[in-house]
Amino acid sequence: MAVYTDVAADELAEFLSLYDLGELLSYKGIAEGVENSNFLLHTARGSFILTLYEKRVARGDLPFFLALMTHLATHGITCPQPVTNRNGEALGSLCGRPAAIITFLEGIWPRKPNAIHCAGVGAALAKMHLAGHDFAMSRSNALSVKGWRPLFDLAAARADSVQVGLRDTIARELDYLESGVWPGNLPQGVIHADLFPDNVFFLGNELSGIIDFTFACNDTLAYDVAICLNAWCFEADHSFNVTKARAFLSAYGRERKLSEAEEAALPLLARGAALRFLLTRLVDWLNVPPGALVRPKDPLEYARKLRFHQSVASVRDYGVMANGLVT
Amino acid sequence: MAVYTDVAADELAEFLSLYDLGELLSYKGIAEGVENSNFLLHTARGSFILTLYEKRVARGDLPFFLALMTHLATHGITCPQPVTNRNGEALGSLCGRPAAIITFLEGIWPRKPNAIHCAGVGAALAKMHLAGHDFAMSRSNALSVKGWRPLFDLAAARADSVQVGLRDTIARELDYLESGVWPGNLPQGVIHADLFPDNVFFLGNELSGIIDFTFACNDTLAYDVAICLNAWCFEADHSFNVTKARAFLSAYGRERKLSEAEEAALPLLARGAALRFLLTRLVDWLNVPPGALVRPKDPLEYARKLRFHQSVASVRDYGVMANGLVT
Repeated sequence: MAVYTDVAADELAEFLSLYDLGELLSYKGIAEGVENSNFLLHTARGSFILTLYEKRVARGDLPFFLALMTHLATHGITCPQPVTNRNGEALGSLCGRPAAIITFLEGIWPRKPNAIHCAGVGAALAKMHLAGHDFAMSRSNALSVKGWRPLFDLAAARADSVQVGLRDTIARELDYLESGVWPGNLPQGVIHADLFPDNVFFLGNELSGIIDFTFACNDTLAYDVAICLNAWCFEADHSFNVTKARAFLSAYGRERKLSEAEEAALPLLARGAALRFLLTRLVDWLNVPPGALVRPKDPLEYARKLRFHQSVASVRDYGVMANGLVT
Repeated sequence: MAVYTDVAADELAEFLSLYDLGELLSYKGIAEGVENSNFLLHTARGSFILTLYEKRVARGDLPFFLALMTHLATHGITCPQPVTNRNGEALGSLCGRPAAIITFLEGIWPRKPNAIHCAGVGAALAKMHLAGHDFAMSRSNALSVKGWRPLFDLAAARADSVQVGLRDTIARELDYLESGVWPGNLPQGVIHADLFPDNVFFLGNELSGIIDFTFACNDTLAYDVAICLNAWCFEADHSFNVTKARAFLSAYGRERKLSEAEEAALPLLARGAALRFLLTRLVDWLNVPPGALVRPKDPLEYARKLRFHQSVASVRDYGVMANGLVT
């Protein structure tokens, strides 16, 4: 949760004067998102989200994120839509930061996802993968295998201060995943790369939209599936819930069938996904700045998930049947 | 800014099932208010604020705050209105905390108040003082003179770590204000006690409402005027802006004329108000808990304001003319 940059009313009014959104009625900093400052605007035209992109987001990547949202929406995916100003621009500048307005999406993210939510996100992820197929822009994934060792280098010296043995655990896993086992020939495409429950909205049991594309990039589609297995299919006590995993994979497979090679790679991809979030959380945990407005997330949650995936013998442990069916 | 308690969707749904607000469409934690957790709800019936009262607010005081908002609204003051559930109750329980829903007020609080804003708040404050006249409940002010020494005791030992000499500055002022000079016979009534710019909304130059009555209490009305002089009439560089003060006092006086005794007491009341915010900010500054989600406000801003009021010879220095007129 964070609002890193407060916006004065007159600055906002000047920014909004370029848009056809009618009178500004209110704006509130909202406690969602850890990378950027987000405000919920009420104007005469409705509700909108104003995002000020803080320094962790590269300005050059913003056109990719904004165009992707537009592309996905025109391909049937419910996600926020960039609002363009009278010059046709979706990206402006406010308080010295890149800023964009997107449409507000009603819906509630599930604090305690159940199997129905998992099925919903599985179907939505597969549809997003299909819809991204002909998206013209591309962005490499800075947080794939090659990005992990630099993170480890930042955290290694102090890793054992979080848990004794953590440095060794990570070093061994990293050595293994860098040893040439990471799959390079699986289907590629646009992935969300951060489709955690707080980025998926529901109204009742119906998925009402997906948000926050600031990690979206081109990468192995099944890696996105592995990220969601980590994000959606564990309980609060860190146990793996195979019912949720089956619901998730089954719903995904009905929209986009995973190949045998993708299924076979899932345990390895899930280890990589667990390591990626373990590393970024560890770096954040060790580097909480004074006066931080965000509580860092527990890296050890992902150390436990990593251990689970290391123990997985095959995709069947995720609920996929011997015949390749997940239903 | 803070959301201390996140609310799960199912808990919120259960809470809302007692209300006639229609389907819940979304809720966002908002980065406003430092004492409580606040959420902006969108339901089929409109926008509302849900507040979870955290431990710094005494549960026994909540009926006073809620009834006061209702009372003021029925007397023409625009402020949020408590929403009662089907049992007629405005106060419930959510996540183990007292919780209430109030109507959402459109409007924008002025980050850089100008003289027009100051006039607006002056008129609104006076109208609130008049409207509170026949409010039946009462609540004493825990942060008036008697409440200051306990705060000083909490902070004295480390006060000079913030600024050398600060302990002495406070000790001397406190001795003086406790020496019997504090006025006890000025007009009393319901005061807001925290009418800072972030609690006053405007649409354009028109005041659209006042919010946050969690410090409201019965006390000297002119003390509320003194709090606003501190909160509204200084520049970012800490200089006193007599144009704003005159606009504020003039607008106040047109709605409720200050007596000569009240005017004469204003410099002293302003010293007390400055000391009160200096003390609470100092205690907060020295006691930022690990993982705090709120940046403490600068206590020294109020040390400077205190020095200004100590140098004031009479109310004329606030823009009141020799003939008692402020226009």
